[in-house]
Formats: sequence, C-alpha cells, structure tokens
Amino acid sequence: MDLRLDHLRRERTGLAEAVYAPGKTPTQCATAVAGLLAGPGSGPVLLTRATAAQAAAAMADSPGAVSIPAGEDDSGAPLSTLTWRTLPPTGRAALVLTAGTSDLPVAREAAAVLAAYGHGAEVVADVGVAGVHRVLEQQDRIAAADVVVVVAGMEGALASVVTGLTHAPVIAVPTSTGYGAGFAGVTALLGMMASCSPGVTVVGIDNGFGAACAAVRILAVRDDQGAR
Amino acid sequence: MDLRLDHLRRERTGLAEAVYAPGKTPTQCATAVAGLLAGPGSGPVLLTRATAAQAAAAMADSPGAVSIPAGEDDSGAPLSTLTWRTLPPTGRAALVLTAGTSDLPVAREAAAVLAAYGHGAEVVADVGVAGVHRVLEQQDRIAAADVVVVVAGMEGALASVVTGLTHAPVIAVPTSTGYGAGFAGVTALLGMMASCSPGVTVVGIDNGFGAACAAVRILAVRDDQGAR
Amino acid sequence: MDLRLDHLRRERTGLAEAVYAPGKTPTQCATAVAGLLAGPGSGPVLLTRATAAQAAAAMADSPGAVSIPAGEDDSGAPLSTLTWRTLPPTGRAALVLTAGTSDLPVAREAAAVLAAYGHGAEVVADVGVAGVHRVLEQQDRIAAADVVVVVAGMEGALASVVTGLTHAPVIAVPTSTGYGAGFAGVTALLGMMASCSPGVTVVGIDNGFGAACAAVRILAVRDDQGAR
Amino acid sequence: MDLRLDHLRRERTGLAEAVYAPGKTPTQCATAVAGLLAGPGSGPVLLTRATAAQAAAAMADSPGAVSIPAGEDDSGAPLSTLTWRTLPPTGRAALVLTAGTSDLPVAREAAAVLAAYGHGAEVVADVGVAGVHRVLEQQDRIAAADVVVVVAGMEGALASVVTGLTHAPVIAVPTSTGYGAGFAGVTALLGMMASCSPGVTVVGIDNGFGAACAAVRILAVRDDQGAR
Amino acid sequence: MDLRLDHLRRERTGLAEAVYAPGKTPTQCATAVAGLLAGPGSGPVLLTRATAAQAAAAMADSPGAVSIPAGEDDSGAPLSTLTWRTLPPTGRAALVLTAGTSDLPVAREAAAVLAAYGHGAEVVADVGVAGVHRVLEQQDRIAAADVVVVVAGMEGALASVVTGLTHAPVIAVPTSTGYGAGFAGVTALLGMMASCSPGVTVVGIDNGFGAACAAVRILAVRDDQGAR
Amino acid sequence: MDLRLDHLRRERTGLAEAVYAPGKTPTQCATAVAGLLAGPGSGPVLLTRATAAQAAAAMADSPGAVSIPAGEDDSGAPLSTLTWRTLPPTGRAALVLTAGTSDLPVAREAAAVLAAYGHGAEVVADVGVAGVHRVLEQQDRIAAADVVVVVAGMEGALASVVTGLTHAPVIAVPTSTGYGAGFAGVTALLGMMASCSPGVTVVGIDNGFGAACAAVRILAVRDDQGAR
Amino acid sequence: MDLRLDHLRRERTGLAEAVYAPGKTPTQCATAVAGLLAGPGSGPVLLTRATAAQAAAAMADSPGAVSIPAGEDDSGAPLSTLTWRTLPPTGRAALVLTAGTSDLPVAREAAAVLAAYGHGAEVVADVGVAGVHRVLEQQDRIAAADVVVVVAGMEGALASVVTGLTHAPVIAVPTSTGYGAGFAGVTALLGMMASCSPGVTVVGIDNGFGAACAAVRILAVRDDQGAR
Amino acid sequence: MDLRLDHLRRERTGLAEAVYAPGKTPTQCATAVAGLLAGPGSGPVLLTRATAAQAAAAMADSPGAVSIPAGEDDSGAPLSTLTWRTLPPTGRAALVLTAGTSDLPVAREAAAVLAAYGHGAEVVADVGVAGVHRVLEQQDRIAAADVVVVVAGMEGALASVVTGLTHAPVIAVPTSTGYGAGFAGVTALLGMMASCSPGVTVVGIDNGFGAACAAVRILAVRDDQGAR
Repeated sequence: MDLRLDHLRRERTGLAEAVYAPGKTPTQCATAVAGLLAGPGSGPVLLTRATAAQAAAAMADSPGAVSIPAGEDDSGAPLSTLTWRTLPPTGRAALVLTAGTSDLPVAREAAAVLAAYGHGAEVVADVGVAGVHRVLEQQDRIAAADVVVVVAGMEGALASVVTGLTHAPVIAVPTSTGYGAGFAGVTALLGMMASCSPGVTVVGIDNGFGAACAAVRILAVRDDQGAR
Repeated sequence: MDLRLDHLRRERTGLAEAVYAPGKTPTQCATAVAGLLAGPGSGPVLLTRATAAQAAAAMADSPGAVSIPAGEDDSGAPLSTLTWRTLPPTGRAALVLTAGTSDLPVAREAAAVLAAYGHGAEVVADVGVAGVHRVLEQQDRIAAADVVVVVAGMEGALASVVTGLTHAPVIAVPTSTGYGAGFAGVTALLGMMASCSPGVTVVGIDNGFGAACAAVRILAVRDDQGAR
Repeated sequence: MDLRLDHLRRERTGLAEAVYAPGKTPTQCATAVAGLLAGPGSGPVLLTRATAAQAAAAMADSPGAVSIPAGEDDSGAPLSTLTWRTLPPTGRAALVLTAGTSDLPVAREAAAVLAAYGHGAEVVADVGVAGVHRVLEQQDRIAAADVVVVVAGMEGALASVVTGLTHAPVIAVPTSTGYGAGFAGVTALLGMMASCSPGVTVVGIDNGFGAACAAVRILAVRDDQGAR
Repeated sequence: MDLRLDHLRRERTGLAEAVYAPGKTPTQCATAVAGLLAGPGSGPVLLTRATAAQAAAAMADSPGAVSIPAGEDDSGAPLSTLTWRTLPPTGRAALVLTAGTSDLPVAREAAAVLAAYGHGAEVVADVGVAGVHRVLEQQDRIAAADVVVVVAGMEGALASVVTGLTHAPVIAVPTSTGYGAGFAGVTALLGMMASCSPGVTVVGIDNGFGAACAAVRILAVRDDQGAR
Repeated sequence: MDLRLDHLRRERTGLAEAVYAPGKTPTQCATAVAGLLAGPGSGPVLLTRATAAQAAAAMADSPGAVSIPAGEDDSGAPLSTLTWRTLPPTGRAALVLTAGTSDLPVAREAAAVLAAYGHGAEVVADVGVAGVHRVLEQQDRIAAADVVVVVAGMEGALASVVTGLTHAPVIAVPTSTGYGAGFAGVTALLGMMASCSPGVTVVGIDNGFGAACAAVRILAVRDDQGAR
Repeated sequence: MDLRLDHLRRERTGLAEAVYAPGKTPTQCATAVAGLLAGPGSGPVLLTRATAAQAAAAMADSPGAVSIPAGEDDSGAPLSTLTWRTLPPTGRAALVLTAGTSDLPVAREAAAVLAAYGHGAEVVADVGVAGVHRVLEQQDRIAAADVVVVVAGMEGALASVVTGLTHAPVIAVPTSTGYGAGFAGVTALLGMMASCSPGVTVVGIDNGFGAACAAVRILAVRDDQGAR
Repeated sequence: MDLRLDHLRRERTGLAEAVYAPGKTPTQCATAVAGLLAGPGSGPVLLTRATAAQAAAAMADSPGAVSIPAGEDDSGAPLSTLTWRTLPPTGRAALVLTAGTSDLPVAREAAAVLAAYGHGAEVVADVGVAGVHRVLEQQDRIAAADVVVVVAGMEGALASVVTGLTHAPVIAVPTSTGYGAGFAGVTALLGMMASCSPGVTVVGIDNGFGAACAAVRILAVRDDQGAR
Repeated sequence: MDLRLDHLRRERTGLAEAVYAPGKTPTQCATAVAGLLAGPGSGPVLLTRATAAQAAAAMADSPGAVSIPAGEDDSGAPLSTLTWRTLPPTGRAALVLTAGTSDLPVAREAAAVLAAYGHGAEVVADVGVAGVHRVLEQQDRIAAADVVVVVAGMEGALASVVTGLTHAPVIAVPTSTGYGAGFAGVTALLGMMASCSPGVTVVGIDNGFGAACAAVRILAVRDDQGAR
C-alpha cells in the first residue's frame, strides 16, 4: 500500500495529520507514523485509539512515543493515544470537565492531544449535574478558563450548566457511556446540540480528539495575537 | 355514535375519564362531556386541548366550566382546558417548574388538571439551567415540595438539576418548544429518560395532562394515609 | 484517580450515591464503595451491574455486602447488585410485576434497591397481557399496592392495563427483551410513554435502579407524613 | 394521461383495483373510476380517501356510489370512501374494534371496504385497555368472530389483549391518533409488530383499506371451502 | 422461580403457550417444557430458538421431541425448534416462500410450528425478485395455496409480487439478512408494511414463529367450517 | 445580493448550473436565470420546482422558456420546471417508469431535464409490481433501453424487478407518495438501497432532477465514444 | 405573567439574554425587551426570529432597534432579528460562508448577532463544494480569518473542505434547506459532526444565533488578551 | 437443500449470479459455486465476503479461483472475494477513489468484481476532503475517467467534490468506517444522497459489489456502441 500522507497539514491547518488506528493493521499504523516522522512536515505525530499490537508495532519502528490510556474498544481491549515529537509547553491550558468517571478515557484522549501541542489540560472528573453543587465548586476555575471541554454521556446536561458560568468558548463531547436511554451517545449529542445555553458547540460522540483539535484552534487565536 | 364512556374510571383508578378533544367534532365533545356529567361516576369532568368551537359546544350543553388556556394547535389556534365538577381544595399542592416561557401552556394544562382534583399547583416559569442560579433561587421551595413537575424543552436538563435538589418525586414533561436540534421534543424526552439523576420519571411530549395524573396518584398516597 | 464522591447525596435527595459498575475497573469499584462507606454520608451503599471481578474486588475491601443476581452483560457474563449498610425494614412494600420471565433480572435489580432502603418489593413474574386473565388474577394485589413497578419488554402493554386497575402511582420500566420488532427496548419505551392510561410514568430501558429510586421517593412521601 | 388500469386484478387476487385519491386530480379520479366500471373486470370499484371535490367529480361521471366518511386529510378537509358495484351480502362479517373514538375513521374505511365485498363489519368503538373491563365485556363477541380487525393508536396495546381472547386471525391497524409519544402511529406500529400475543399481523399506519383487503382474503378461505 | 404457565392458552386462542428460549437458563427451559406437558392443557409444546444446551436440558427431562434447525444466535451458535406432542396431520398446508438461501432458518421455524399443529408447510427457497421469472415459475402453486408465508430480507419486495398473484392471505416475515442498507430487517419490515399490494400483513423481524401462528389461526377458519 | 453563478459548470461537469427555486424570492429566481443566460456558459438553463410567481418573474425577464408541470409544494401550489436554451435532439432516449400515477410529477421533472439536454425520455406510468404482468408487458422496452429511471414510492420494489430484466444502468428515484408506512419516501429509499438486484443506484427522495443528471452523465459516455 | 429575566447573563457569560420570539405573544416579546433594556444589565438586547407583529410590538415600546431579515417561519411569513443597544465596533470580524443562496437567512442571523456585539461579519454566499473552485477562490480570506462560520444544508460538506484550509476555529451550522435526503437539516448536522476534518464544531440546525454566540466567545479570547 | 441457481442471469442482466457468502455454510458456498460453474450460464462466478473456511471449501471443489482480500467480518475474521472464469480484458477501466485507508477493503471488493468482468479498476486511496489538494492532484485522472466509484465513510463529502470535477457518472459507496457521528455508514449514506452535486448516485453501505455491478452496466453502454 502506498500511503498518501498529508505531511503539510499542520502548515495549512495548524494541526498535523494524525493516524487513527481502528481499521488499520499494526503494520499500516507503524508505516504511517514512521512516514509522517520522516516527512517534510513539522509538529506532533499522533496515533489514536491504538490497541496494544498497533502501539507495539509503531513504537518498534519509531521509538520515543508518549503513551496515554484511552479506554477500550468494543471487545474490551485497552486502547491508548501515542504521541511523538510533542511541542514545547505554551504556558496555556484548557479545562476538561467530565460528568462521570466513565467519561475519563475520552477526556484523557483530549488532554493527550492538547499536551502534544504544548497546552496544559487539567482534567476535573465527576462533576455531573445530579449534584449541581459539584459543578458550582468549580465555578471559579470554569469562569477563569480560556477554553472549556465538557465530556458527558447520558443526557449531557453538564454542557448547558457550564456554559452558563463562563465567558469562555465551550466545546461539548457527547460520550457513549450510560444506560437506560442514552443510545450510545445519541441522547447526549442531541441534548448538547439543543442546549438552551447560547454558544455551546459540539463534536462527535466520544471524539475527544476532535474536541482537542477545536481547542487547539481556539488557543492558537491567542498565539497569533501574542505574536503581533 | 354511541359513546362507550368509562363512568367508573375514577372508582377504579382515582382519575375520572377525561375527554381529549383533538380529532373529535364539537358535537362529539359536547356529547361526551354531558354524558360523563349525567352518568353514575363522580369527580371532575375534563375536556382537554379544546379549540374555541369545541369548547363552545361543550359549554353550551354543559354550563359551569372553568376554562384555562393551554397553548395552540399546529395551526396556531388557541386551545384550552375545561373543567366541570372541580373537587374541593385538598390543602396540598405540587410545584410546577418550567425551563422557559414557551413551556407555560403545558405547565398550565398540568396545573388545571391538578386544580380540578383540588390540589394547588404553583407554576414557576423560566428557571432554565442556562442560568443555574435561577434554579438555585428556588432551592428551598423545590426541597419542600411533595411532588415536582418539571416542564422543559430543548435538552430538558432542568429535570436532572432539580432532581438533585429534593427528596420529592419528580415528574418530567418534555416539550416540543425549542429549535436547532430539539426535534419537537424528542431530544428533551431522551435526555430526561437518560437523566443522570436517579429517580426522575417521564411522561410523553407536551403531556401536561399525564404528568398531572401521575402527580394526583402520588398525592393520593398521602390522602390514603391521612384516612388511616 | 481521585474520586469525587457525593457523600451527602442522601441528605439532599433521600438517595445515597450508588456506584454504577460498567466502565469502571474492579479497583475503581472497590475504591468508590470503600470511600462511600468511610465518608460522612449515611444510608445504603450500592454497587450495581457488577461483574464477578468487580463484585469480588469490592467485597474484598468492604465485607458484608448482600448480593442479588441482576442478569447478564452483553457478553453473557452474570451481573449482580451489591448492597452495604441496608436500612431497617420500613414495613412498606412496592409491587413489582413483570410481563415475562426474561424481565426478571431488571425486576430483581429494582427489588434489591428497594430492599436496601428497607422497603419490601414483592416480584410477581409472567403476567403479560397475551393472557390478560393472568393480570386480572393479581387485580386485588394491584389495587392495594402503594406503588407498582411494571417491568415489560416487547410492546410494553402491561403498563397500560395495570394502570387502569389501581389508584397507585405506576412506574414503567421498558426492557430490552423480546425479538421481532422490540428494538432492544425502544418499542416498549415508546409504548409506555404513549400509554392510553393516564398517569403512567416511565424510566429508561432496563433501568430497574431508576424505577426503584422513583419508588423510594414516592414511598418517602408517606414516611414524611407518618412523621408529622 | 393514459391510465394503465388493472381491470383483471380481482380475477388474479380476489380484490379489484381501487383508486387511491390523494395526489390525483378530481378529473384523474373520475376517469379512473369510470374506466374501471367500463372495463372487462368485475367486482366493486372503490375510490378511497376522496376529498369533496374528488368525490363530486367521480360521482358526476359515475352515478350510484355509496359514500362513507373516512376522517380528514392533513388540512382538516373531510374525506370519504366511495363504492360502486357493491357485491351481494355473503352472510359473513368481521369484527372491527377501536381503542378510542379518534380511531373511528380508519375503522369505518375498513368497514366500507368489507361491505363493498358483501361482508358485514360490525364496528365496536372505544374499548381501549386503559379500562380493560371494556374489552372483556366484548369477550364473547371477540371469541366468536371469524376475523378481528383491531384499530388503535397511542401504544396499540389493544391488539395484544384481543389476540389473547380468540382463536380468530387478528389484523392490527396502527393509527396516527394520540399525542405525547405516539409519533403519528409509529409507536403503535412497533408495539403491534412486537406484540407478545402470537399470531397478530399488522398493516400500515391508518391503513384501514389494507386491513379490510387482508380480511377479505381470509374470509375467502371460507368461501372456497363452501364451494368444495 | 415459580413459573406462571398459561396451560389453557390453546383453549382460549387455539395456540398453546410456547417456550421462547433466549434469556432463559437451560433449567428454566426444561422446567417450563415439563410443566406444560404435565399440565391440564392440550396440544403441541414448543421450545423455540433453543441453543444446544437448552435443547439438551429440555430433552433430558422430556424425551420424545422433534428438533428442527432454526439458524444461529448472535454469536453464531446453532439454534433449533423443538416440538413435543405434535398434532396429527390435518391434510392442509401453507406455502412458505423465501427470497434467498439466508432466509431459510426463519422459514424452517415457521414450517416447524405449522407441522406441530398438523399442517404441512412446503418451503420453496430462493425465489427473490431479482429474477422475477423464478417467482413466476411458482405462480400456479402460489395461486392454489390457502395461505402463503413470504420470508424475505433486504428490500422485502417478494411480498408485493406474490400478493399480486394469489387470492390467498399473505403473511410477510421481514428477515435480518442482507447488507448495504438492510438495517437488520428494518428496511424489509417497512417495505412490507408499505407494500403497494393490498392485503399483505406483516409480523416482526425474523419472527417465523409468529407468522406460523397467524397461519394456524387462518387455517383454523377452515377447520371450524368443516365442523359445521 | 450578488449571486455567485457557476457559469462554467457545464464545461467542468457536462451539466450547466440549474436554479433550484424553493427558498428563493421570485426576483432572486429571475436574476439567477438571466445571469446564467447572459454569462459565458453554454447549454440549458433550468429553473426547477418554481411556483407560479417564481416562474412568472423569470419568464418576464427571460422570455422563451419551456414549462413542464412538476407536482405541488407542501401547501398544494402547483410547481413547474422551466427550461431555456434547450439542446438539439441527440437521437437518444432514457426510459422513465413509474409505479403509480402519483409518481408522475417526479418522472416528468426527470423527463424535462433530459429533454433540455436533447435526450428523449419516454414516461411509462403505472407499472407497479402489485400486478407484475404490467412490468412484464414492458419487458422488451426495458431490455432495449440505454438507461432506465425507475420512479416509485411506497416500498419501491419496482426498481428490483426492473433491474432483473435489463443490462442497462438503472437509476432509482424514491418518491414521497404513499401512506401506511411509506414515511414520505424513506421506506422506498431504504428499499432501493437494499435492493437484491445488483447494480441499482439511487438518488434522493423525489429527486427527478438528480436522476436525470445521472442519466445525462451516462448517456454522455455514448457521446464521447461516438466522437472517437 | 411575571418574567424571570436574566439581567446579569452578560456579566456571567459575556452574552446578554436574548428574547427568542417564537411561541411568545407580541406583548410578551415587547415586555421582555423593555424589561431587559430597563434592567441592571448591559450590552445588546436581541429579539430573534420575530414576526412582523412581534417586531412591531417590541419597537413600539422600545424604539431604536436595528432590524435585519432572517428568513421565514413555517408558514412563509418573514422573520427578522432586532437589536437594541449595539456595542461599538471592535475592529474584529468573523467570516460567514454559505453553501447556497437558501442558507442566507441563517447566515444573516449570525451576522446580525455578531454586529450587535461590535464584530464585523462578512457574509460570502454560494461557495458550495459542487464547484470546489468557488471555495478555493476564497482560500486567502479563509486562511486569514480569526473565526469562520460555515452555513450549509444538504450534505454539509462545505465545513470539511473549509476546515482543511485554515488554522482558525470553524463553527458549522447545518441548515434545513435542500431536498431529496436532507431531512430538514439532519443530514447536514450528522455530516458536520462526522467530518473528517479535525476541529470542526457544530451547533443546532438553522441556529445562526448559537453560532454567533460561540464566535463571540472565541473572539473574546482575543479581547482578553488585548487587555492583558 | 436444493439450490435454485439463476444460471441465465448474465443473459438477462449482463451480470452473472454471485454467491454472497455470509449466512451460508462452507458446504452451501461450495455447492453454489460448483453449480454455477457446471450450469448453462456464462461469465464470471463470484463468491463474495467469504471467510477462510468458506473460501477453502469452495476452492477445494472448484479449483482455479482468484482471491482478493475484502476486509473483515464483525468478529474481525478476514474475508475475501473469489472469482472463477474471469472475462478477458476489455481495455476499459473505472477509477476507484477512497477517502481514507480504512475504506480500502470496500474499494478492493469493487475492483475485484470489475476485474472479473475484464475491466481495469485503478484504486487511488486517501484523497479525503480534509486536504482538498489531494483530490485536486487527481483532477486530470478524475476528469478523464469513464466511470468513477467514490468510497467514503464519515461524512462522505468526497462524492460531492469529485462529481463537480468530471463529466463521468459517479457511483458513491458509503462505508461504515469512522467514529464520532458516522453511525456505521448512515451519515455517509445520507450525505451522498443529499449531495449538492447533481448526478451522484448511491449504493448501500459497504456495498462495493453493488457499485461495481452498476459500473459494469454503465461500461456496457460503451460496449454496445462498440458493437454497432
């Protein structure tokens, strides 16, 4: 297979091409990672949602990756997010909130991607609205954040409450956790899209990677200005 | 048409048969109401979601109704809830909360039915979670209520927050208000069913009548006990 | 991971925080249970839908749990509901009806939670409406109940029939049992939401836990009154 | 427009081609009816769901129709079922049950089609399962019927209960009546398809015509035998 | 567990209670079968969709079953339909058509149930409409049948074509076979419900059992007449 | 408003930009048509689904249009397809089949677009599979066609049958006609996508325009070859 | 009605409460606007999606509004966005792109809200991907923008292409324009959520208001920095 | 089992019957393949989506197959497309484009089927629109193609862009790859159906076989002409 890598994506979009592991063989993963590292592009190289076998193959070819757990695939096998060529710290950070403990893998994927771009990403878990005081305890931190990523399953109500507590952009990530009538994230997705709080934006189900990319784009607005 | 009225429904279920106006001619409405009033049953007689023509026909045959506005039908014509033979005050009351102004017609239908059974039903509007302090201002009232009915469209998050603030049973009513991705109440319905707050129960979209019936059943638990 | 346990949830809502096992590691389950038992809160501590490994880990750290079978997860592994610090008997009881034998695990989860709060919960199985005489044989018991929980899959019609036979609040739990066009509980959920019997309320699919929580809230209405 | 009428459909299927009015101009309706009456085929000619204008055009060209009301179209205009060349009475009859008053137009369409084929079709309305005694009062009639057509909206539970009370084939027709979570008949359709009562079969939403056609096919099984 | 068996269902509905194996333990299956055989009821006892373990347990307790393959469960394990106390041949038979080879297990379940009631059930496979001449080759047999069961996945078009070729009642069974946009039977189900051929009736996805029950009810119409 | 017309679309794609009228004011329609006629592009200029007012405005500015009826909008107002600068006859033709009379407006839109490009497009209506002999009567014509467009609502089965009778490419257009369970074209769309006949391709609901564009692309294959 | 206005929302979230007109009477609209203007809050007061009657009532009570057209409601009546107390120009601007002419009302609502907060918002219409050169012609402007709002119906593909051309945050707004299989915006919504371009975020269907609010939040990130 | 093979399908439709392996036993696969090879028909014999066991059984009975990998089944087992009696090269070729690497198995199935009919099928992978320059690099090849097959998951936007760059017929295949909100191909399917580019046609999800069949039909249009 001759890969068609998009080496200059970071130059065009601020975000380097990432390798999404599911559906690729370990060899395809390793080849793609090595190809990106060897190519003309700059910036972090990411392998997301990699199984142990995919991660091992990529790390054998390309040593020096940072690996962060990212939940499990449908069969329960553990996945991880791997990063090569992490950017130096920018001194800025996003706040990543989760409604429950089960939302943590998605939150960690988002944090791993933000870290790859040099941004901090504090993860505060378990602030679901069933006990709204838990959100309010974080009120100052929420109000002070430059960007907030809200990770929530079930009805996804956390996004609405948080957005009402801050001037910052809020990126909501519906997760497939929950039972009863969560429908694998669809309920949370719809709830976040229909939020009564003006200014919430939403990414796909369990898409911690996409949320982080949106946050990197927003934080880069600051970067640019710093440069002017 | 020979109607098959269920005169003794209140004896069986605590709730008398109500006449649901949509899809019936004004004459059918009037005949059903008069038939229930003339029959062997006891308790309130209700005509719900009646157009002006349906209401007029019923009131011409059966004077003495109390009429309460209940929003509009699909073509924008005003609807109302009519009650005959209201029960005397029980001294008890439900708390009916709405997320927005547009949820008021459904809340008022619920309140009208509760009033027909002698229960008070204070309606507090516009406490949506986009400004969570508005809910918290009602915290004492919510904690003290015997039953809370939460009426909300869009993402329906109010139900989750309120349920976390009280020991009382909470009945959630999704409404078809809202835009963007509310899908005429489906998003709120799913969000309420998937609520992270344990103990929320849900009725159908815009079904203020059903919510009130559930509240009447719960308040009757108290009644029974009072009688023992 | 630092857990953000909601120790005082029972003080706020009458229902202590419960640990929902799916998506948590055995260690996370054990830590959460132990943390709740050690914390300032009171009342039962529940671990729901635990696999054998999760249950073993929690019981190793925190002995003395009562364990009740609660069906199987998607891979067919048996699950159970574990309870620590059960409340003393209240002398009250809910009636839990199931349409079929396959609905029993959900009914038993509901009964286990009610028992944890000191309430009895008689489970009567296999009274589906395909043989409506089976429901009618239970008519006296249904009419006498303080709260009825109806657990049914397929078309969920049992909720409509039962609600027409009692003054009591009825909480309907759609289950994912059945085939043909049950769509893993969605058909039952919709049928219960659209029930022609006024006053049915509904919780999420297979959510025996949520139904029990709603029943505890309703039975507490009686409690409060007893105290006055 | 040159119509491609299927004059010999009754010879092939026992059921003559019927003209479905919606989406046709009054002239197209009139031409189709006149064409069928003038053609080589035998048996009843039906014009279904005709507006006043469509009915008038057809009756002007082809006098002698029997007209039966059949509810309203989406804009609220009254519709009717028209029949020419009705067959002589066969001495047999189907039983048509409806859950509510609002289901009557669909039931009447079914009855009109059965009458066109010479079969009686007693319509018994308002036997919904919210008061299951109303169904049980009809138990003897249901047990004695050759074919039962059950017309119900909302959750459609009537089909399950009726099927448990008879040896006869049961044809269920979901209707678009109801509110809350009926979703214009989808909930009833799914509930009937997933019925726990073995042997229910289902036709499309509001499809009284199709249910009657299925009943005619079943009653013809008897006919054939009579002829042997 | 005390089972609530419906021993007299055949007396009420013409169809004895059948034991649906999925979700039951082998012991529950065996107990239910043995209970039905020992009870006051008459007629066939059926265990449907049984795994090897369920079948073995039931046959150990209750020898003498006839076993017919009925496809596979979600994990690919073979299932079978078991029958005890089969009725003597009635001399009548349904015609069971399938669109493809993959529809055979559902067709065989239907045939097994019909056989249990003494009816023949010829299965003719692979007459899908992609080669419409294959259906037309069966035209005489289709026209002569008393009842036709059409089993088809993908778009389910076979039901429409067959219904246009016979006076007989047609029962359509959507199957979950197919790929592309079959959505596990939903496409076939909707297509059959919306069929342009008047008089098709439909049962749930893969529900060969239900289709056979409907056919037994229809064939009994003939029986009754024979008795008069 | 400054329109951004795509004058050279025909040069890039073989198909000139067309003006889709819904959602545009009459003035916007007229301006767009006049702009395309005045621009550097060649080939037909089309205004599709125009109301009387939109058509009048465009024809006032740009005389010489050919107008063909194209059904009605949601409010029942008649629509038409208008063409300016029709190409000379190519001597080739597509065959456009419809299942019912109600599918004609969509078929005529397709035919109007084909005519604009100089292709003939014979419309044969009313060959639905409920009477499969009607399709078979067209067998020779179907087998001889270069391209077949199949327009069908309800279950859309005509596409499967026709595709089995020809070597030609078949383009299926689901329509929103029908009732019962057609769901405004979704059932036909899914059925056509899942067709058991290999080689059917599908365009959007009621999208006669799109089907014609696909046919123009296919017929142009012939053109090119003729030129070589 | 006593309104519960959220006067200090801008202080909490940077965005003042806006009055969403649909479902409110003209008097309710006027009262809400006047109340917000008279209250303690600062910043713009907006009345969105107002009919002529609602706009007239609000402007009679509160003169000095800027009115911008915002498409039509379901019945085709024109709507507008009204603004009082617009903020002074900030010197910054978002780029608002639309795929087609029909997306303009939503784009204009977004632009009106951005203008109310002092931001410019250049609207570039008709750059849909069917002619990808039209997007590429805007490449420099897209690459230079601080924030891009992409408004598109049908398949919503414009968001994916634009996001690949810029470092800026991209907010996608699905619109309900289009036909065939657009399903009133659901197809565009899903397509934008599933975009292969990392970093797209999405708001609800036709929710130009919400997109503008998100853009205001993002542009304020710059503001803050300017202040440091 | 007696198979009803459609030996003369190629004579009727230009495409020989193919054996779809899923749901068939290895023996059924082998028998069907051998039967087609031994029968009166001509042209390629295909076994699609075969597991290793199915492939082995068929090749043991019928040697000489060409095998091409075709992704994995739900359990991750590798599948392949097998071909016997491949047609000689026609000198013509389709262009098969994929948006991502994960779409390759579907693209290869399409290419294998085209090859069986003697057509070339160049597969160009990884030209997704997130980097639209990758598509534009293929612009000449796309413009020159006789037929283009576009294989894409996620939002499926590649089909819209490609169709705007060529006169050729474009067949779009939605794939079930992707995450977030791809819903196993439904999002891509809807997006392709709703494409703003006129003339795209669509086949079912992951249906590379169907796309190839449609391409074979289109390329045969050329063939026919060659013969005249």
